[in-house]
Amino acid sequence: MTWTATILTLYPEMFPGSLGQSLAGRALTDGIWSINPRNIRDWATDKHRSVDDTPAGGGPGMVLRADVVAAAVDGVANGTPVLAMTPRGAPLTQARVRALAAGPGVTLLCGRFEGFDERLFEARAIEQVSIGDYILSGGEVAVTVLLDACVRLLPGVMGAALSGVDESFETGLLEHPHYTRPPEWEGYSIPDVLRSGDHAKIAKWRTERSEQDTRLRRPDLWQRHSDAAGPSPSGARRQKKEE
Amino acid sequence: MTWTATILTLYPEMFPGSLGQSLAGRALTDGIWSINPRNIRDWATDKHRSVDDTPAGGGPGMVLRADVVAAAVDGVANGTPVLAMTPRGAPLTQARVRALAAGPGVTLLCGRFEGFDERLFEARAIEQVSIGDYILSGGEVAVTVLLDACVRLLPGVMGAALSGVDESFETGLLEHPHYTRPPEWEGYSIPDVLRSGDHAKIAKWRTERSEQDTRLRRPDLWQRHSDAAGPSPSGARRQKKEE
Repeated sequence: MTWTATILTLYPEMFPGSLGQSLAGRALTDGIWSINPRNIRDWATDKHRSVDDTPAGGGPGMVLRADVVAAAVDGVANGTPVLAMTPRGAPLTQARVRALAAGPGVTLLCGRFEGFDERLFEARAIEQVSIGDYILSGGEVAVTVLLDACVRLLPGVMGAALSGVDESFETGLLEHPHYTRPPEWEGYSIPDVLRSGDHAKIAKWRTERSEQDTRLRRPDLWQRHSDAAGPSPSGARRQKKEE
Repeated sequence: MTWTATILTLYPEMFPGSLGQSLAGRALTDGIWSINPRNIRDWATDKHRSVDDTPAGGGPGMVLRADVVAAAVDGVANGTPVLAMTPRGAPLTQARVRALAAGPGVTLLCGRFEGFDERLFEARAIEQVSIGDYILSGGEVAVTVLLDACVRLLPGVMGAALSGVDESFETGLLEHPHYTRPPEWEGYSIPDVLRSGDHAKIAKWRTERSEQDTRLRRPDLWQRHSDAAGPSPSGARRQKKEE
């Protein structure tokens, strides 16, 4: 079955955009997934096809109307989860991406201007999602991120069956660093252990670097990982050794 | 002066992509910023134009070579900060976006495959940046996000001078919810205070909703905000009242 992305946007011409190229583009051509951008304006009810109005209480910008957007959501309903891209949403995680990729598809709502009328989220079952703590010109770029992350996980998209398992966030940690040829470059060498041929030692080094880099670079991730794992004797040992 | 984005990628044809449309596209046409995608392969030294090789120590996938990528970075050096998009990087923030937008431009390095040879970051001054805790097919989509976020802040891009100041993350908090016409919809009303015309009360309600939503939805942001602000008597009062 084809994994289907339905997109509600004011800029349908922005899709597939970069999703039509590279890995996601080949998967699109191969029919592994399909993209269905729809213009929210098609659900406007006045002759000017208005989708927005000024913010209640004053302030700059325009707000997307709850009635028009809800009609659009209702109009494309196909049983897939409905996600609105908004900086007020829950941060997107690899676990959520993996769950979406395992389902039949997704319906995505692109914010623009100052955002959506809040009543939309009271009246409809819509998951509010943020791709990061920064502001974009609209939800279209955020949708591209979410779809790129999902599509690479669809069966048949990535070449190697193993790819994607040993990567950053899949284990709740940052991935270990990588090295490749040449062995010496500008005075920098590949760590000896990676050239030892000792697979157990290499696996141990990679796990330790993954833990160490996560602790140093992302104490927030490390904290969550430690909380989830509980008091692990091996983790505690490793941490002590490195400090 | 034109803000310049130099992009080192294996897929130069992916740019400007969606950055050629909507707000960023109009700014590109207006000459407010320029985009210069360059193919990393142009700095390869063998006849096959190789840019990658197998991971030292084994494992699936391919790793981008430090020597070829460093030559590309050196080749396009123009004094702008060099950022590599990688899930091992520091999370992108609105503060970093604002600082980049205030400078002369940026040089962006797109990861692919399993990532970069780590020695690249020892040998060159390159900032490692992540747009979120999920895995993309490559850095190109992450670059699109970063540039979209920067370009909207360039002088002359956003219509209203006030826009962008009162938004999520600019204050370290999520933005308050928005409402617009119609005042009644499917039994849901716009909060009375927003229709009161009392600007002081409206401002107070918005600040409180901004704080409340941040505490409930993003305890991590709220914690950082509270730590930065120090023990604020007004913040403590508000928190107590709402709990």
